Amino acid sequence: MKLFCDRLVDAIRRKGNPCVVGLDPRIHLMPAFVKLGRAHTAEPVRSVISDFHELVLDTVADLVPAVKPQLAFFEQYGAPGILAFEDTVRAARERGLLVIADAKRNDISSTAEAYAAAFLGETDVFDQRLRAFDADSMTVTPYLGCDSLQPFVEACAKYSKGLFVVLKTSNAGSKDFQDLELRSTGRPLYERIAETIREFGRPLTGESGYSSIGAVIGATFPEDATRLRALLPEAFILVTGYGAQGARGREAAACFNADGMGAIVSSSRGITYSYSPQDLKKTAFVNCVRENTLRMIEDVTGAVRK
Amino acid sequence: MKLFCDRLVDAIRRKGNPCVVGLDPRIHLMPAFVKLGRAHTAEPVRSVISDFHELVLDTVADLVPAVKPQLAFFEQYGAPGILAFEDTVRAARERGLLVIADAKRNDISSTAEAYAAAFLGETDVFDQRLRAFDADSMTVTPYLGCDSLQPFVEACAKYSKGLFVVLKTSNAGSKDFQDLELRSTGRPLYERIAETIREFGRPLTGESGYSSIGAVIGATFPEDATRLRALLPEAFILVTGYGAQGARGREAAACFNADGMGAIVSSSRGITYSYSPQDLKKTAFVNCVRENTLRMIEDVTGAVRK
Repeated sequence: MKLFCDRLVDAIRRKGNPCVVGLDPRIHLMPAFVKLGRAHTAEPVRSVISDFHELVLDTVADLVPAVKPQLAFFEQYGAPGILAFEDTVRAARERGLLVIADAKRNDISSTAEAYAAAFLGETDVFDQRLRAFDADSMTVTPYLGCDSLQPFVEACAKYSKGLFVVLKTSNAGSKDFQDLELRSTGRPLYERIAETIREFGRPLTGESGYSSIGAVIGATFPEDATRLRALLPEAFILVTGYGAQGARGREAAACFNADGMGAIVSSSRGITYSYSPQDLKKTAFVNCVRENTLRMIEDVTGAVRK
Repeated sequence: MKLFCDRLVDAIRRKGNPCVVGLDPRIHLMPAFVKLGRAHTAEPVRSVISDFHELVLDTVADLVPAVKPQLAFFEQYGAPGILAFEDTVRAARERGLLVIADAKRNDISSTAEAYAAAFLGETDVFDQRLRAFDADSMTVTPYLGCDSLQPFVEACAKYSKGLFVVLKTSNAGSKDFQDLELRSTGRPLYERIAETIREFGRPLTGESGYSSIGAVIGATFPEDATRLRALLPEAFILVTGYGAQGARGREAAACFNADGMGAIVSSSRGITYSYSPQDLKKTAFVNCVRENTLRMIEDVTGAVRK
């Protein structure tokens, strides 16, 4: 199977844009028609989320290369939410979309192996090998150290999957620890982590010249993004903070290479919950999600082309 | 309701020790009798894990104050694993044990709120408020910054729950980023994060003098632990690395205050999978888990008393 990075480059070229639709299940924000006719108990949580996402996926599958389900919003609904996560990953892959599981997981040794098995690999269940979530890629946090990242990188190599290591996030608090200058270099902590990402990525560099080991970078700090882009020329950057968090295509463009490649930009609320009123009909909802997606694609591709 | 820290102190006093049994479901390591008579498909994953944990909980409930289910090992089995996690949390709480969800989660803004809701708080589901996992406490990672920790701290205040922020982990790679010296202070990054933990913990300090905002520290670096203990006198320390990772009571003792309080020590494999052969009978298994637990209690309390 092709490396994740090459599959991502193919998908971006095929769709003609690097936009990612974020899937954050928040039932109270969904339009009423999705919830009507369901018993108002916890019971239909799975079906409401899965049906809502199927509708979103049907609406955007021909437009974008990938989707990014955010695990936190599934987990807030407990096991029914996780069942809906499984449905959502399956539905996205059936529609030819790449899936980035935004899980921000990590741990050490055999525990990190278990997370990598859960999202990217296989688990031994009795005498079978089971793929628990089988996403195409996932996000992980770096604080626990290089040996904590190793099992994820190995899973990427073995199963042709991808990794996005949290590097410089879009929130104001990203300054608190990520930006701290190191005594040895006088440079921010995140630059040291960027070096690690580059080293891990080298053996997983594909025909496209890009690597399957990427980084999460917020578009809200375009100067930092520009520097990190230069330090990580082969890494795919998952750009966050677009839309609801205030960044636009102009800021996101700092995460791209001069060839217009090397980054994907994600938007969640701005695509799936940006409409009013709540009582809009199914056709109006579909049109709205499609228009939100097309508007983002135009903004991002326009800014990257410049 | 009492603050988490005070409930933890009560439980430690009642049981006479600060030992925590880690619950890492790994079906291939479980004794054969747990799996016999089940269809060898993915179907009985939930019941095998839940039954295994009920047996462990029945065996240790009168001995220890708390248990620590590790989410990664549940997630590797997909949704059936998460159903088993829900079963396990419920079974532990029914037996009067405090539950530390070892999830190492984090994210920013509304996403961090969703994780806090999932593990510690409530989620709005149609017109009901649902408690998804309802653990007593959880572990989180700090890299994303202070504002990423804020929603978890708020959930602790609102629902009388506890937090353990990953600070200095037990793996060799904890040196890679956690130990990096900062230009401004000449001190390691983890000391800066310790300051943050202490500040967040102050308003959540209970009658016991301890706070509900604690830290995860590996017993494998006792010198670092001694320094961190002094910097965080009110924090509860969740001590990892005991047993399978090589640390013993003597090393773990560095995480305790002079009053013999202020830390809990966790062991997983050393309690639940430390036996041979695999074909031991139920009674032998129960005896073995109980002996492993008693041996750990003796080692830890003996070392802390010194």
